[in-house]
Amino acid sequence: MLKDNLDRNVAAISANYDSSDEIFFGKPDRHFPRRGEIIRMIKDIRVLLFPGYFGDESISNSDPTYFIGETLIRVNHILRTQLREAFMFRDGDKLSAEEIAAKVDEVAQAFINRLPELQLLLLKDVQAAFDGDPAAQSKEEIILTYPGTFAIFVYRLAHELYVQKVPLIPRLMTEYAHSKTGVDINAGAQIGEYFFIDHATGVVIGETTIIGDHVKVYQGVTLGALSTRKGQLLAGIKRHPTIEDNVTIYSNASVLGGETVVGEGSTIAGGAFVTESVGPNSRVANKVEVTVREPKKN
Amino acid sequence: MLKDNLDRNVAAISANYDSSDEIFFGKPDRHFPRRGEIIRMIKDIRVLLFPGYFGDESISNSDPTYFIGETLIRVNHILRTQLREAFMFRDGDKLSAEEIAAKVDEVAQAFINRLPELQLLLLKDVQAAFDGDPAAQSKEEIILTYPGTFAIFVYRLAHELYVQKVPLIPRLMTEYAHSKTGVDINAGAQIGEYFFIDHATGVVIGETTIIGDHVKVYQGVTLGALSTRKGQLLAGIKRHPTIEDNVTIYSNASVLGGETVVGEGSTIAGGAFVTESVGPNSRVANKVEVTVREPKKN
Amino acid sequence: MLKDNLDRNVAAISANYDSSDEIFFGKPDRHFPRRGEIIRMIKDIRVLLFPGYFGDESISNSDPTYFIGETLIRVNHILRTQLREAFMFRDGDKLSAEEIAAKVDEVAQAFINRLPELQLLLLKDVQAAFDGDPAAQSKEEIILTYPGTFAIFVYRLAHELYVQKVPLIPRLMTEYAHSKTGVDINAGAQIGEYFFIDHATGVVIGETTIIGDHVKVYQGVTLGALSTRKGQLLAGIKRHPTIEDNVTIYSNASVLGGETVVGEGSTIAGGAFVTESVGPNSRVANKVEVTVREPKKN
Repeated sequence: MLKDNLDRNVAAISANYDSSDEIFFGKPDRHFPRRGEIIRMIKDIRVLLFPGYFGDESISNSDPTYFIGETLIRVNHILRTQLREAFMFRDGDKLSAEEIAAKVDEVAQAFINRLPELQLLLLKDVQAAFDGDPAAQSKEEIILTYPGTFAIFVYRLAHELYVQKVPLIPRLMTEYAHSKTGVDINAGAQIGEYFFIDHATGVVIGETTIIGDHVKVYQGVTLGALSTRKGQLLAGIKRHPTIEDNVTIYSNASVLGGETVVGEGSTIAGGAFVTESVGPNSRVANKVEVTVREPKKN
Repeated sequence: MLKDNLDRNVAAISANYDSSDEIFFGKPDRHFPRRGEIIRMIKDIRVLLFPGYFGDESISNSDPTYFIGETLIRVNHILRTQLREAFMFRDGDKLSAEEIAAKVDEVAQAFINRLPELQLLLLKDVQAAFDGDPAAQSKEEIILTYPGTFAIFVYRLAHELYVQKVPLIPRLMTEYAHSKTGVDINAGAQIGEYFFIDHATGVVIGETTIIGDHVKVYQGVTLGALSTRKGQLLAGIKRHPTIEDNVTIYSNASVLGGETVVGEGSTIAGGAFVTESVGPNSRVANKVEVTVREPKKN
Repeated sequence: MLKDNLDRNVAAISANYDSSDEIFFGKPDRHFPRRGEIIRMIKDIRVLLFPGYFGDESISNSDPTYFIGETLIRVNHILRTQLREAFMFRDGDKLSAEEIAAKVDEVAQAFINRLPELQLLLLKDVQAAFDGDPAAQSKEEIILTYPGTFAIFVYRLAHELYVQKVPLIPRLMTEYAHSKTGVDINAGAQIGEYFFIDHATGVVIGETTIIGDHVKVYQGVTLGALSTRKGQLLAGIKRHPTIEDNVTIYSNASVLGGETVVGEGSTIAGGAFVTESVGPNSRVANKVEVTVREPKKN
């Protein structure tokens, strides 16, 4: 590279740094939460909740309380460090260091206290997958390999931070799962027990979706907003549907709109496009006429 | 974290360990197959079959037999170690150590013996991709970068273990490819020669699908089951369709049901929803009426 | 493994090497561009353009010109090494070493010179995402986590090399983004300013697509070819649609065909299947009749 060219490009990029608020260069006491640390925490929690599957093999020979205690202490440490960055990013100009520290403490405590219950909740999701998929040979296979179950696991962790209004970290968590599985569950969604996502890829569940118990969803399903043309004006408003208990939604169906309710026990057929509420135990399908053109004789 | 809180959560998680069969803690002589090792084996086989693409550059200067022999020995070693874990997991209470060892030996031998033929089969898949995609500039580009071709490669390996009734490992393999490519091919599917998946993301091919030769499938295609509400009662039954030779299935189409046969030479249009058999050389499409609303005058 | 078996398989794989042009073993002066190096370059450029997000935290304390200069020099070095491999692969038999070196120099220079402008262009894509998504809490969240924005970033880099007719590398770049995000944008597509892809997974944008400014696209959208049965005969011909300014295309819609134009300001509804041109400010939807079957009384 010619020295002149290099100098010119260095100057141009440096000028871009100065002219933009978003490039975020040069605030020495502020950093974003680190994606790598968030992922490390997710993996630690996964080993903690399912130690036989993802952990060091030797732990099964010793008293589990040491392993649990050590892992909880490490999770607690990573979480607090990242929470501090996240709150500083959003509230650093409004709150004092003491107020930030108090928020970090409150949120981290509440999160850690939820882990035992989340562990039991996840076992119910595993049970739902086993009951729902004839190709599953064992519950162990599901824990070890099913991407839908992994996406639900990460969502359930992220949701705990979302309800505490933590910025950035819930999204970093769910986008990690999205990247691994093709399932985009916004951390704000409210999802009941025994939830199963089969085949996973392409599922989108929006921020204000409400889902009951024993719901089963297939690949490519969107639970989305009817129109988001108003952009940020719609922030905080219920834009996504409500799915009641025992509903099954087949592949590539879309259910859209904040006032749309799918009544309990209903089935949405593959590819259906639903924008109005339906009562309990309904079966909803697009009226599809298939055209079969016979071959021409030669 | 307060000591009291820590102690309470350690006790709660420890109690969860004791109360669940699935958490799988504390069986010192049983471990799950290791995902990391399975991935290492897949990568080794890929270098073995396509050494110019993914391997160490220096090998091309030496006699390839040393490289091939060394790689086969390593693949053989990883495979046997993981097969032992997989068979112990499922059959450890029923079979003796000698019986397990005999199964491991038989399966590993058969797998290694298939590799030369699989290599030639994969070259046919590459040819199909080149013939099918005007955007492909060379066959080398396909081997190096096409996700659909990678998913087929992993499926063909996993299928060899599936037919030998190996637990867990075939699924670990196909879910690795699923995570990388968005293509979920169950290892049980039977797929002929010259298979091409274009653009890849969102394709689902179920366990009992049968696919002929020269079939081409686009992103988002589901070859699935009509209803899986009966769950585990349906295990082992043919639930997914049969696709005959020379069929093309365009993006986001679904072909569903164990008795559905798409006759040879047929074309399924994008987004079509097919649940009944069609004869040879048919063209199947949803009858879609598109509504265009003109803009209002202001 | 029995020695006999090993020897037989080594010989069979060795014979496969000899019989195929594609396996590419034993051309000591030719190598493919290295995917790992391409990814390292993409990450370096990302840190360069958004240093506060993905880089080493300490850089924000020092004069940015050193950091910019050092990163540009490293990017320049990786790029030249990989360009040389790519041009040697395609043109090594036709061009002299000097001619290859001249091409490498020209392309690398042009690429580096574009980076400052691309940085500003990417900020416009971030703005489009913030304006388009009520769930986005800040522009920083978008830069840090949105997969659609990441896929556009990689596409914009790859496109610069595509227009210079670089083989292999543009595809390696876009397939890296595809693998991370489920978004497959061919490097040949021409895409205007303020482009937003929401939820990302399953989007396919073909090689000859033309997209205007302020276009918004949702998960699962295909901008594709009507038929690619003629394979390589269609290489270079416009096969994909033109999308004019201010168009919104909702989830899982397909717009197909090289002569299809979607007029400016139009909206394509979710799941729509469009194969003919529509004028400005139209609203296009499949006429879907939804069938709701009420439950049987027991």
